[in-house]
Parts: sequence; structure tokens; C-alpha cells
Amino acid sequence: MTTAATALSGVIPPVCTPLTPDYEVDKGSLIRLVDHLMDGGVDGLFILGSSSEVAFLPDGHRKVVLDTVINHVGGQVPVLAGVIDMTALRVLDHVRTAVEAGADALVATAPFYTRTHPNEIAWHFKAISAQAGVPVYAYDLPVSVHSKLTADLLLELAAEGVLAGLKDSSGDEGGFRQVLLGRRDRDLPGFAVFTGSELTVDSALWMGADGVVPGLGNVDPHGYVRLYQHARAGDWVAARTEQERLFRLFGLVAVGGPHMGRSSSALGAFKAALHLRGVIDHPTTALPQIPLDADEVARVGKFLADAALL
Amino acid sequence: MTTAATALSGVIPPVCTPLTPDYEVDKGSLIRLVDHLMDGGVDGLFILGSSSEVAFLPDGHRKVVLDTVINHVGGQVPVLAGVIDMTALRVLDHVRTAVEAGADALVATAPFYTRTHPNEIAWHFKAISAQAGVPVYAYDLPVSVHSKLTADLLLELAAEGVLAGLKDSSGDEGGFRQVLLGRRDRDLPGFAVFTGSELTVDSALWMGADGVVPGLGNVDPHGYVRLYQHARAGDWVAARTEQERLFRLFGLVAVGGPHMGRSSSALGAFKAALHLRGVIDHPTTALPQIPLDADEVARVGKFLADAALL
Amino acid sequence: MTTAATALSGVIPPVCTPLTPDYEVDKGSLIRLVDHLMDGGVDGLFILGSSSEVAFLPDGHRKVVLDTVINHVGGQVPVLAGVIDMTALRVLDHVRTAVEAGADALVATAPFYTRTHPNEIAWHFKAISAQAGVPVYAYDLPVSVHSKLTADLLLELAAEGVLAGLKDSSGDEGGFRQVLLGRRDRDLPGFAVFTGSELTVDSALWMGADGVVPGLGNVDPHGYVRLYQHARAGDWVAARTEQERLFRLFGLVAVGGPHMGRSSSALGAFKAALHLRGVIDHPTTALPQIPLDADEVARVGKFLADAALL
Amino acid sequence: MTTAATALSGVIPPVCTPLTPDYEVDKGSLIRLVDHLMDGGVDGLFILGSSSEVAFLPDGHRKVVLDTVINHVGGQVPVLAGVIDMTALRVLDHVRTAVEAGADALVATAPFYTRTHPNEIAWHFKAISAQAGVPVYAYDLPVSVHSKLTADLLLELAAEGVLAGLKDSSGDEGGFRQVLLGRRDRDLPGFAVFTGSELTVDSALWMGADGVVPGLGNVDPHGYVRLYQHARAGDWVAARTEQERLFRLFGLVAVGGPHMGRSSSALGAFKAALHLRGVIDHPTTALPQIPLDADEVARVGKFLADAALL
Repeated sequence: MTTAATALSGVIPPVCTPLTPDYEVDKGSLIRLVDHLMDGGVDGLFILGSSSEVAFLPDGHRKVVLDTVINHVGGQVPVLAGVIDMTALRVLDHVRTAVEAGADALVATAPFYTRTHPNEIAWHFKAISAQAGVPVYAYDLPVSVHSKLTADLLLELAAEGVLAGLKDSSGDEGGFRQVLLGRRDRDLPGFAVFTGSELTVDSALWMGADGVVPGLGNVDPHGYVRLYQHARAGDWVAARTEQERLFRLFGLVAVGGPHMGRSSSALGAFKAALHLRGVIDHPTTALPQIPLDADEVARVGKFLADAALL
Repeated sequence: MTTAATALSGVIPPVCTPLTPDYEVDKGSLIRLVDHLMDGGVDGLFILGSSSEVAFLPDGHRKVVLDTVINHVGGQVPVLAGVIDMTALRVLDHVRTAVEAGADALVATAPFYTRTHPNEIAWHFKAISAQAGVPVYAYDLPVSVHSKLTADLLLELAAEGVLAGLKDSSGDEGGFRQVLLGRRDRDLPGFAVFTGSELTVDSALWMGADGVVPGLGNVDPHGYVRLYQHARAGDWVAARTEQERLFRLFGLVAVGGPHMGRSSSALGAFKAALHLRGVIDHPTTALPQIPLDADEVARVGKFLADAALL
Repeated sequence: MTTAATALSGVIPPVCTPLTPDYEVDKGSLIRLVDHLMDGGVDGLFILGSSSEVAFLPDGHRKVVLDTVINHVGGQVPVLAGVIDMTALRVLDHVRTAVEAGADALVATAPFYTRTHPNEIAWHFKAISAQAGVPVYAYDLPVSVHSKLTADLLLELAAEGVLAGLKDSSGDEGGFRQVLLGRRDRDLPGFAVFTGSELTVDSALWMGADGVVPGLGNVDPHGYVRLYQHARAGDWVAARTEQERLFRLFGLVAVGGPHMGRSSSALGAFKAALHLRGVIDHPTTALPQIPLDADEVARVGKFLADAALL
Repeated sequence: MTTAATALSGVIPPVCTPLTPDYEVDKGSLIRLVDHLMDGGVDGLFILGSSSEVAFLPDGHRKVVLDTVINHVGGQVPVLAGVIDMTALRVLDHVRTAVEAGADALVATAPFYTRTHPNEIAWHFKAISAQAGVPVYAYDLPVSVHSKLTADLLLELAAEGVLAGLKDSSGDEGGFRQVLLGRRDRDLPGFAVFTGSELTVDSALWMGADGVVPGLGNVDPHGYVRLYQHARAGDWVAARTEQERLFRLFGLVAVGGPHMGRSSSALGAFKAALHLRGVIDHPTTALPQIPLDADEVARVGKFLADAALL
């Protein structure tokens, strides 16, 4: 069994949260989705992340997801759990729940809603780490959190043993490389660095990243696993070819029209694709996301067909 | 007894949440703070807003605040409760708790953390209103929520009976006036419009606002009540003089140095002032806000002295 | 003759720049526009500001505007000239041209395009002021310049004699009031403070502003002059009524559809209104602004009719 | 002789503009800088870009730079000239000057200062291209221009023959790859794509970019040329090693303290490095940038020594 004490690596998709039409967690579909991902050969699962609609899930739903996935996986791969909330005391409630449920590691953002400061972010992560008892990963997602985690702060918290790793969805490749070079220079090999930028995974691995947390990996886990394995085998041309195929598939996130937000479109497209592929029972996204209409779903189907996934 | 069915007006401060040094709700101090505000003559209380550190309070803390304040007030003035969370299903959990605790009205923001869209915001408020059973106020706070509620959307939701009013902390006075003129043109007098911009209250009332939700009202409720009463009596010069005095007092929010964020500084200064004035037992702000140091607290005291509040 | 050495006050519209269909300055129309504004009773003219499409005008066009307006006005009212460019050395070229042309005062923004800093902004204004030989006004327009001029910086530069005044188009009414109170506290009565927020002029004057620079004043100078005179006479109710009428007229800036930017829509609407009112010969806006179509122009006409301006 | 009609590739540094202490163009130093870059083996020169302080240079200075560099280079490599200004008519003045001076190609941004729209951006580039008579490159620099050029817009303008290429300094590697894949899919091989992200050049070339426009290339042109040649030779490990060395050298851009902006620090450090290396006579940056102090310059020297450049 892989334990979280070992530094993580590889493909760790953020697991979508299938819902019933009345917005309850669809446990059967969730289990099938986990099986679909495991069948794809993923190296771990990240539940309750942004692609999991964590911002839309009440605490009760979050608990169902934790229990369902962790019990079903049974330790075959590590399960990382998002503990996403506005500030430290609220996050600590999620930490308790996730650790009790058996999560192997936790993933937390900087404070949001409130305006924050690097000193406050540092204290925030220290408070979380001090209580967690399992490894804590920082989640850098400025588009949601509205602040950026700097390389200096991350490496300092790594050196102090506060953080076990990073999921970087900032899109700032220069900053990402600064973290990668910094951990080498400061000799912090245990600090695991993952990219969440699913369109430049070959580059991230080339720069030294340990793995990827791809939202699109829900739709095509086999593709991301092949990409990762090609890179690990040193066959970078094959890795790039696979990445370019996945890049084109990623176009499905934009099927939603101007009557909805980008989040409704992207998460709706992931779920529509999983529904079309027969993995989940309903393409329902959580309130108040606008559902895709039939034409938009048909366009998702076209993307799947072009990628030979239907 | 004033009921929430009557349109609200006047001074409704967002009530700070006193904490013990170990970050529990300090109920005794909270009750004294409520008495301090009621003694000041306020027209209502807004608990669990941004100045209440709602973003920092776990659900258990929020429940203590709800029960403590609503029980203590006993219907003497209406109590509005913030139901601040990322998206609709999470907000609905807070709605249930607040309504069961006896809140007279609720205050909700647009979705945050996720990227959103006007159609999603509309659906969000409709879902909240449909379940609430008490009036729902929209809270426009782009600095935290990262989207702006437009006048057109607010007035449409007012006309449909979804929203009972607005607390506008956007700082966009043109947009605020558009709401005020729009409710007159569309004949929506029951839609109550409050400003949260505590430095231009005379202007907001002059334009037609029904009242103010001033964070600084924790420190000097008597001042804001005088300002409001002068305006209602048509003595605008006296209202302006009072506002200018309060403007200068507001300078205390900036005592915090560059080692902390603006939120730590402002909320820390409010609490330090309440502590210095003998209203609350501890100036503690919630983790991970950086506490004010002794010099910074002394500067708060200077502001109070200059305003004849010590 | 009013000289710029006297502190300015009143209504100083930013003068639109009429163009021929092939994008040359239409001098005849510009002269008629100036007469239209003078007929309205304005207290000064601000040429080469944002509403003048200064960002769209080559230096040759700017020179034509300077010469045409200053010669035509002949000292009847002061003429302020924008010297809008990215940084100090470029601005100084415009300063020379404007002063040689006889501008009574200059209006400059902080540096833009480059990222900047308060110390750099201070040095920038000092360099401009040192060369100008006429009063220099700071222009606070974060939507274009992407930095905000703070009250502290403005008042310090006022105290040092660098700045003669401020045109505040930031929309930050709290910050605006801080400037107004600060100049009183620091006894800087010669520092003239104008609002560019044309929808809250009564409030700005109420707080102590000296005047307004309203883009909409091109379309209805008489209205803004009445508003100002009501306020100066202490008839604030009449001032508010006039402001509310102008507020509704301002709706014309939004006639442009989603196929154009807000600037194309607003500046196009001002020019369409001036064309419909017979003041200028062509509604042409400068390349690459998208022209209004016939329906959009018709909607402008409807706004004018509703305001009894046709 | 390389002509601009041939698609460009390779290392094309944005040439710093050496200044005398009284802010005139230091022609002697500029010529030595050009020689330094040519000695490094660069494939072209980009004058009047952001690293050239174009935003700080009056038109007279720009003309001196154009004439000095183009005459000195004498056609040995192509010279691209920035025509950076707010909107189309102003840019067209720069186009005339640059083309008359003999520039081989031009580089233009989207409109700035004004708020803009994709339709306006398209028209802007069409107007520039229609007049230029030489190839026009789009410059994507959202940090200065405050809008992002989308892949769809760029590829459409490429297909229409409006744009000859792109310099992408957006830092959006996903969007950059979308351009690269899109030109392959739409068969637009003549559209030259350069990255301005000097810290991920190996990645950009790996994804298919034609070259790089590195500000740091002023300081170490030989390094960037080696990096490019390693990549072209298929020795990606050597390319990465060189990039990592340059990454560390890039740390010099942050030597400036909190009393200056990031632009003052970065451009000041480039010039201090060139001065320390004996290439230019003065490290002067244009007004109102804050000069580096002696300690900050010493830190630049340390970076150079660590990189074996002193």
C-alpha cells in the first residue's frame, strides 16, 4: 500500500462529484467514477477540490464524498481531501472531519473572502498543519482565492515542515519553476510539486514537477496516465503528442454559451462527458450553475468522438 | 415590536464578534456589546457580517452568536443575520440555522470562490429566498466577493419579490444612486436600501438611502445615530459635521503596520477600541489575523481621545 | 479676465473633439461646441481629457485642438489642457506645446503602461510641475491609469506647491472626502478639488468640492451649470432634482451593444447627441472605436427627447 | 541578408536604451550594446519595446534609437521596431517614422488607456497593417495593456494576412500553446510565434515557438543563443541546464527595495549589469524611475559573478 508518508507523484485527478437531479451526492456514480479513474491507472485521488465543486457542496455532502471514496478505495491509492474554506478556524473543522474519515493528506488554499497578507497566509498554514497529523498541500488558485502564493513563502513553509507539497493552478509557469529550482537549491526533495495546469503537463514534468492534478483527467484518465508514463520513460515526443491530443479535447470546457459563467460551462462539460461515456448517471451540476442545453451537450459529444472516447 | 415585515431603516451596525484569547465566542462581551449598541439607539443589528469576522467563524461559533444575540435582544429591534458562504447549497444550511434561531431577516452575497455570472447570481438569490421564509437582503461587497451586483439585477429581483433590500458596500456611488432612482421609477418602496460606506452616510441618505450599516458604528453607535437623526430631521449641516467627525475617527482602521493585511488592521482596531472603551474583555481577532501591537493599540487610543470617546 | 492663478471652481466640462469622417479635427464643429458650452455658462474648459478622446488623438490633432480652442476662447474662461502620456519625459513634450499654445493650466495623470510606485508618481508630478510654469492638476482615473492617487500623496504634493488641484474620476467617494477634509485640516485652500463623477455632483459639492468636470456636460452644459448654481445658492433640493434629471440622461452612454466596448458606446453617444442637437457636423469617433448604428443613435435621440433637449 | 519577408526565428532581444545622466539617448553606448548583442549571435533586434523603456522615451528619443540602430546594423540582422502608443492614429505616426527609418518589421500592442473590445482590437491591427508596408507583430503584454489577446483573434488576423507574428509576454502558457496548435491546425506556418517569457524558453520552444524575445538577453545574449541552439539541435537537456542558469541570473530583477516599483528595479538592474559588464557608460534609467542605490548595484554584481559574467 502506498502511504502518504511517501512523497506523492504521478496523476492525481480532482474527482468530480456526481449529483442526483435533486442535488444529493450520487454515491453509485461516484464509486463508478472512482473505478473509472483507477482503471485509468491514476496514482492517487484528490477529492473535494475545485473540479469536485467543493465550493458548492454543503458539509454534509462533503462528508458523504469523503466516506464513499475513502471506503471504496481502501488504501489502493492515496486519497487527498480538500479542506477548502475561507479562513483557518473554518478550515480546521474540515480538517477534523477529513482526518477522521481517513484522508491520507489534505489540500488547503490561502484565506479568501477576507483580504490577506503573506504573514497571515503563513500563520494560516501553520495552524492547519499543526492540527492535521497528515501531510498538508498548499493549493495555489488565484482565480478563486485572489492572492498568489509566492515561491519564497512556499519554500520557507516546506523547510519548516509545515507543507508537504503544492498543487499549482496559478498558471504562472515562471513562479512554478522558481519553486522547482528552489526546492533543489534548498534540498527539499520531500516537498512534492504538482501542476494543475492540464494543458502544459509535459512542460511541467520537464521542469521537474512530480505530477499533475488534471480536471480533464476525469474525462480521460488513461490519456493523462499515458502522458505521465511517456515522460517518466524519457519519451518526451510521445508525451507531447499525448498532451496535444488532450489539449484539443480540453476545448469542450468552452461549449457553454454567453448565458452562463465559465465554471458552469467547464464543470458542466466534464460531467456531460462522463455521462455520455456512461460513467455517471446524471450530468447535474450544483445550484446555481446553469445546466448545458442539448446543443451544448452535443458539442461535448463531438469532442469525445474526435478524441476517440465514444 | 418592530417586525421585519416593516421595511427597515436607520442605523443597523454589523456587530463585532468578541472572542476569548483561545478564539471562542466571548458571550459576556457580546452581550455587553449589544447593550452598548442598543444604548446608542440603533434601529437594528446585523450579526455575522464581514465586520463580525463571519469569514473567520466556524459554524459552531456562528450558532453561538445567533442564539446569544437573538435571545438577548428579545425582539426589541430586528436582528439581521449574515448567511455568508460560497454558493447556494452551503448558504441554505446557514439559512436553516439562522431562521430556526429566530433571525428577522437574512443577508447574503453573490456566489464567490467560483467564477459566476448574472444568471447564476439571480438563481442563487431565488433559491435562498424561496427557502428562507423571512426577508432576504443582498450584500454587495466586491472587495470580498469579486463580482458586482448591478442595479438592473437588484431591481428585477426586488420586483419579483426575491429581495427585500440591499446592503451596498461596493463604494460605487453612481451604481448606488441608480438603485435608488430605479426603485422610485419602478415603484418599489418596500425595497430597503442601506449603504455600508460609513464615510459618506450623509450623501447616501441625501440620495434617498434608508439607512446605514457602519462597521465603525461598533465603536461609536451614538455618533451614527445622531448623524441619522440629523438627516431625518432635515438638519443636513449637523449631519455633515457629525459625519466629518466620524470620518476622522475612522482613521483608526489604518493603525496596523505593513506586517499585516488591511483586514487585520481594521478589525483589530475596532476591537481594540471596544476594549479600550471597556465594552469587551479581549481585543482578540480570529486566526490568522495579525494582532495589533502595543504601539498600534496606543494609536487607537489616541483616535478615541481625539473623538472624546475615552 | 479669469486667470489660472485664481483657484478654479464651477463647471469645467471635458470638451469632446469633433472629427471629420476621415478622422481630422473638425475645427468648425469644435468652435461651435465651445460656443455651446460657453452659452451654457461653464466656468472653464478642459481640452484633451479622456472625454476628448485624447488617447486617440495624434500630437498633430492635439495641437489643432489647443490652438483652435484657446484662440477662440480668448481668455473669457480658463482653458485647462490635458498632457496625457505614459511617463514624464513624454508628458513634458506635451507640456511645452500646451504652454506655448497658451493653456492656463495643465492636467496630468500618474505614469501608465509601466508599473509604477508612489515615489515614482511623486517624482513624475514634480518633474512636470517644475517645467510647466502654469498650475498643474492631477487627474485620478484608475480605470485608465491602473493606479490610484492616494489622499496622502496628493495633499503632500499640494503642500509642496507641486499640484494646484485634482480632478477625481476614481469613483472612490471616501478617498475623495479624505482629500477634501485633508486640505481643510492642512489649510490648503488654494488646492482646487473637482469631481469627475458626473452622477453624484450634488454630493461632491456638499462635501466641499469646488466644481465638476462632467463628460455629460458636453450634451447638457446648462443642466450642470444650473446644478452647480443651485448648490452654491444653498438650494440643495433643486440641485438634487437637477442631478437626478442628468442621471437619467446619462443612461445614453449604454446604448452601444455587446459588439463594442464601453468607451465606444459612451463617447459615441456623447457625439451622437451633439450631432442630433445640431452642435457638431459629424458624430465620428476616432479609430478604432466602433460607430453606433442607426438604432443606437435613435436610442440616444430618445434620451434627449425625454430630457427635453431636442 | 536576412529579410523580414522570411519568417523570423531565434533570439531577438528587446534592446535596452542607454541614457546619459541627463536623459538623452547615449548613442555610443547604444551602438556598443548592439555590438554586444550581435557578438552574442542574436538573430534580430527588437528596439523600442518595453525593456527599451519605450513608454519613457519621447518621440525624439525614439527617432534617435531607430536611426542609430538601423544604420549601425546595416541589414546584418532584421530590426523590429515597437510602435507603442495608446490607439491606432497615434500608432500610425510611429509607423510612418519607423518605416521611413528602415525598420524591417513593427511590433504593436492592443489599444490601452481606453477600455477596449475584441472588435476594436481587430480594427486597430488592421489599420496599422494596412499602412505599414512591412510585417506587423502583435505584442501581448496584459500587465501593461490590461487586455489579453486571444488565440482566436490572433489566428484570425494571421489568416487574413494582418499579422505576421506574435510576441507573447502574457505569461499564459495555455493560451500560448493554443496559438501554436492553432497555427498548425489552420496551416499558417508563416505566422511567427515568439515568447517573451524568458524563464520558460525551453518549454516554449518545445511546444513549437519560433524564438524568444528575452529582456535578460541584454545582459547575457550568449546564454540565450546557446539555449536556442541547444534546443534546435535537439539537445533539450543542455537547453534546460542553460535555462536554469539564466533563471537564477534573472533573480537580479528583484534587487530594488520597497521604495521603488518593479519596473524601476528590473530595468535598473539590466542597465546596472550592462554598466558593470562595461557595455554601456551609464546605468541611468528614465525619469521617473527610481535609481538603484549602491547596495542594490552590488547585489546585481553578485548575480553577475555567480553567473560568471564578470
